[in-house]
Amino acid sequence: MAKPKKTPRPKAQTPKGFRDYFGAEVSQRAEMLQRIAGVYHRYGFDALESSGVETVEALGKFLPDVDRPNEGVFAWQEDADADKPGDWLALRYDLTAPLARVYAQHQNDLPKPYRRYAMGPVWRNEKPGPGRFRQFYQCDADTVGASSVAADAEICAMLCDCLEAVGIERGDYVVRINNRKVLNGVLEVIGALGDEPRLSQHFQEMAENLGKKMTAAKVGIVLRTIDKLDRLGKEGVRSLLGPGRKDESGDLTFGADLSKAQIDVVMSFLEAKGGTNSETLINLREIVGRSRIGKEGVDELEKISELLSAGSYGPDRIVIDPSVVRGLGYYTGPVYEAELTFEIQDDKGRTRNFGSVAGGGRYDDLVKRFTGQEVPATGVSIGVDRLLAALHAKGRLDTTDVGPVVVTVMDRDRMADYQAMVAELRQAGIRAEVYLGNPKNFGNQLKYADTRNSPVAVIEGGDEHEKGVVQIKDLILGAEIAKSATLEEWKDRPSQFEVPRAELVAKVREILAQHGLEK
Amino acid sequence: MAKPKKTPRPKAQTPKGFRDYFGAEVSQRAEMLQRIAGVYHRYGFDALESSGVETVEALGKFLPDVDRPNEGVFAWQEDADADKPGDWLALRYDLTAPLARVYAQHQNDLPKPYRRYAMGPVWRNEKPGPGRFRQFYQCDADTVGASSVAADAEICAMLCDCLEAVGIERGDYVVRINNRKVLNGVLEVIGALGDEPRLSQHFQEMAENLGKKMTAAKVGIVLRTIDKLDRLGKEGVRSLLGPGRKDESGDLTFGADLSKAQIDVVMSFLEAKGGTNSETLINLREIVGRSRIGKEGVDELEKISELLSAGSYGPDRIVIDPSVVRGLGYYTGPVYEAELTFEIQDDKGRTRNFGSVAGGGRYDDLVKRFTGQEVPATGVSIGVDRLLAALHAKGRLDTTDVGPVVVTVMDRDRMADYQAMVAELRQAGIRAEVYLGNPKNFGNQLKYADTRNSPVAVIEGGDEHEKGVVQIKDLILGAEIAKSATLEEWKDRPSQFEVPRAELVAKVREILAQHGLEK
Repeated sequence: MAKPKKTPRPKAQTPKGFRDYFGAEVSQRAEMLQRIAGVYHRYGFDALESSGVETVEALGKFLPDVDRPNEGVFAWQEDADADKPGDWLALRYDLTAPLARVYAQHQNDLPKPYRRYAMGPVWRNEKPGPGRFRQFYQCDADTVGASSVAADAEICAMLCDCLEAVGIERGDYVVRINNRKVLNGVLEVIGALGDEPRLSQHFQEMAENLGKKMTAAKVGIVLRTIDKLDRLGKEGVRSLLGPGRKDESGDLTFGADLSKAQIDVVMSFLEAKGGTNSETLINLREIVGRSRIGKEGVDELEKISELLSAGSYGPDRIVIDPSVVRGLGYYTGPVYEAELTFEIQDDKGRTRNFGSVAGGGRYDDLVKRFTGQEVPATGVSIGVDRLLAALHAKGRLDTTDVGPVVVTVMDRDRMADYQAMVAELRQAGIRAEVYLGNPKNFGNQLKYADTRNSPVAVIEGGDEHEKGVVQIKDLILGAEIAKSATLEEWKDRPSQFEVPRAELVAKVREILAQHGLEK
Repeated sequence: MAKPKKTPRPKAQTPKGFRDYFGAEVSQRAEMLQRIAGVYHRYGFDALESSGVETVEALGKFLPDVDRPNEGVFAWQEDADADKPGDWLALRYDLTAPLARVYAQHQNDLPKPYRRYAMGPVWRNEKPGPGRFRQFYQCDADTVGASSVAADAEICAMLCDCLEAVGIERGDYVVRINNRKVLNGVLEVIGALGDEPRLSQHFQEMAENLGKKMTAAKVGIVLRTIDKLDRLGKEGVRSLLGPGRKDESGDLTFGADLSKAQIDVVMSFLEAKGGTNSETLINLREIVGRSRIGKEGVDELEKISELLSAGSYGPDRIVIDPSVVRGLGYYTGPVYEAELTFEIQDDKGRTRNFGSVAGGGRYDDLVKRFTGQEVPATGVSIGVDRLLAALHAKGRLDTTDVGPVVVTVMDRDRMADYQAMVAELRQAGIRAEVYLGNPKNFGNQLKYADTRNSPVAVIEGGDEHEKGVVQIKDLILGAEIAKSATLEEWKDRPSQFEVPRAELVAKVREILAQHGLEK
């Protein structure tokens, strides 16, 4: 008989683009989500948790982001039933597509308007990169079925409260708002400027290839171009709005082929931000006031800032800013973005603004795919991992978890005594554990306490047991003394205390309090 | 040109076996997980969050549960790279398999022993049934690398603390412990009883088909049989340990073919529970004392109960119970199970014990698949959804979320005033919202407040605005009055109050406090 082949051992590795989170990384995120949920709830939003798996049919197979139509999902086919092939299922790629499905499925049971929040992992089947993972958290709040801009204003206020709830101080952030309708006004105005649009041969072909009307294709280029303001700068944007642009490699990107007058209008929109919100509104009215939709957009921005001011969310926090272009292609009305204004050092030691941590806006096609009915919606997504990184960069998050008090095992036969000690400490609310490894080598036990970042070790050998005392070692102080052994003032401070067994909890609590570690 | 076919609208439905969770269902589970995490943390366990996706290779393709080898996972193949086929990925089916992968992958960076907790969704590709979903939560704590039964004892204590932390009172639960080693002792003892095991023809064939030694096959039947004690009762188990058993349909199940003396030993083990833990230990020693492994198992049980007593986890909460058989086939040492002892009414109105809500035990092959090295581990899994159901059955959970205070919109042009009111309420920590639907029909606004389960509605029309007052409607009291309109005492109690605008927050807070709804 042939010897059966030995199966090779499996590799102990996460799939590419996935990672594990340990200790404080997990609990800090959990706490942040809980605080944000608290704010969302206070604003009247109800929790919704849908599952990670949806039918591909309900989800739509690809992300809506026009620039990356190939960004995919993780999908698989269910086993076939007796008479029909299995459904295709997929992991959700965001929390908005499931919201659309939920709203269409349960709409008779949901309040109208429906304010809901959702937080949880989403999955993207894309090439992983540095700091770019294929599973990450989203933390969204959306109002479905409210066409009033009061809904948008409310979400901007909520965004401010969320940032403050997680530890971003007032003055360290700003919520910038813009409106797709103003941009539509800009497009109307430039349309009126060029009765007979100048179209290059290339542009005509492209529009035909896309099966779009020429104006639609042109609008697409304008939208994509202004979305690149950050990356290309003003001159780059001007070139792309005009005949086109050569990049560093010499490759030519064809432009929207607008006239100079048209380009001037677009640029004046992007640069319309004044010293105050009122000034910005005046500038915008000047640019798009002739367009009905444009004027409506400016009116909405004015209304939003007025509603927010009434709730004391003033211009120190809410800024109308036409240069907020991200998402203008996707959204249909107001858009908003929270930006942290403080500077941080990036990985390469360069100082830069931290930038955007949340964004959202109004979109009106939420459930249309399912029901044919247009339902207005507006919502925000907070980038929890970005926010954690920001707090970390500001030194407001201690990423090392405080370890447990470690009760060492001097005498294996008296494990019950040591268990009694940890039980007392835990019942007093103190994080504590008995050493559960092989107790033979005492040095290993202290090394373990060090690995665990323990503040205190408890020692009770035979002598102590007989005398009815325990030794309590202040490991934080001990480490400080070890670091600065030359300093006389440290040398004289004892870091180990002998106390009666009955005073164990009190003494440990005292030491924790000295280090600011009490609960 | 042929008219393009209209794409049919997608169905707005969860995939079969998945469901959505709304409002209080979500927040109550989140709160429960947070409380359990608090206890786990206090016991020195560190959080671990791995992703939902693992390689099939790392995960192992199927569940370890011997009785259901076809219980599957959701799996798919990654897109191929240029030169090699894509990896197979899958959704995790529990939190233990990922722990094994994490421990093998990161072992040099982890403390030893490693106490970790994990909570999150897992997925099973099985036929859904009533109340049986293909995504559900697990909430685990495991200690890896500690061979001492002190680790098992600690987890039993922690289980008690978790139950009390989520609202199960002392006296309403018991943690029952048993030990696989005692069962191994039983098997040794019965092996010694039958020098020449009596084997039916069928039994011999089966053992050969399974490619196992006859004794191994026999042990398998004994294990599976005692695991069916709950379902078959003592007589059923006796039959299956002996020649076999005819079920109601007349089908014969072949048995383990043990002699009467052997069966008596197994049954005496299952019925060894005495009035106290000490009595049980004496009974067990009598049955398996002659077997080395059996004696070791009884010693361990004694040690565990001694360690727990030292931490004041006494016999009112910790019960040695040989009839705990679930998992004895899978685990290698101590096993434990938390059972709620109170009675509830089931769906059909029958009274029954609520039963098990958590279980676990010791298993030693955690990372062996990856490293070849045997690492001892012990851990528990708390059934969060079962626990929520238990609290609900006891009336300790209110599943209706308290709705927000609703500020109604009497005058669409004064939205800023209404926004100012909700801002004040929210800043005072009160859940509140302004009505964001079409305000034309005031009745709809009150209906909305009703749908939202709102405790209070705020009304400010033109008259009130001029007078500088607001109307505050106590909706809870209003509903009570409406229900019992014949009672004179109710009739005279007003449920609507006019207060100065400046007293809005104070009055709302007062009403909430009257209904026990203050924060």
